[in-house]
Amino acid sequence: MTLHLNTLSVDSRDPAALAGFWSQALDWFVLMQSDDQALIAPAQSREELPGAVAVLFLRNEEPKTDKNRWHFDLAPDDQDHEVARLEGLGARRTDVGQHDVTWVVMADPEGNEFCVLHSLPATG
Amino acid sequence: MTLHLNTLSVDSRDPAALAGFWSQALDWFVLMQSDDQALIAPAQSREELPGAVAVLFLRNEEPKTDKNRWHFDLAPDDQDHEVARLEGLGARRTDVGQHDVTWVVMADPEGNEFCVLHSLPATG
Repeated sequence: MTLHLNTLSVDSRDPAALAGFWSQALDWFVLMQSDDQALIAPAQSREELPGAVAVLFLRNEEPKTDKNRWHFDLAPDDQDHEVARLEGLGARRTDVGQHDVTWVVMADPEGNEFCVLHSLPATG
Repeated sequence: MTLHLNTLSVDSRDPAALAGFWSQALDWFVLMQSDDQALIAPAQSREELPGAVAVLFLRNEEPKTDKNRWHFDLAPDDQDHEVARLEGLGARRTDVGQHDVTWVVMADPEGNEFCVLHSLPATG
């Protein structure tokens, strides 16, 4: 058998704009963009980082209705700083019923929920 | 700034079972599993494959209602063979209105949609 994860594909009203948000959020590369789709990845080619995931934003006009069942959990060095930076890029804090937790629940400009985890412990 | 993609987190009614399906589907490793969560990744440690995504299945009893907005696109060497293998693991073909396309739309045992792309061209 050979079956590789080719992309994580994400429905989007505006693929180029959403790829812009996420490439800045994660400091990833925009590898391709057109009116209908945009591809981002943590490296400029697959050869550079074999096994790295690429995210493909695909134009889809269906409205988002419920909380997504798939989401990113992001690990920051400084949670407060990264939350503020992401708000500056167009994300917002959101409430999915999380109550008192160590992570911050946010939504990207199209409402896709994600979490910014507690800051990593300082090392060294 | 430092913000890393820690995991792709997936709501699941049965995290251990769903991690079992996907680890077999992708030939990935189960790195951790408990009653409430299970973690799979393409390598046994992060150092081995920088940039690779780990998938964390999290217990969530909310029913899946709509088509997911986030899904995997998988690249097979042999589409027919891989589709049959995935059916043997508990996936099924599903219809999201895709009509006549080169990829096969399937759903995992909890209904999460994914696509098996057209077979890769043989290289020689």
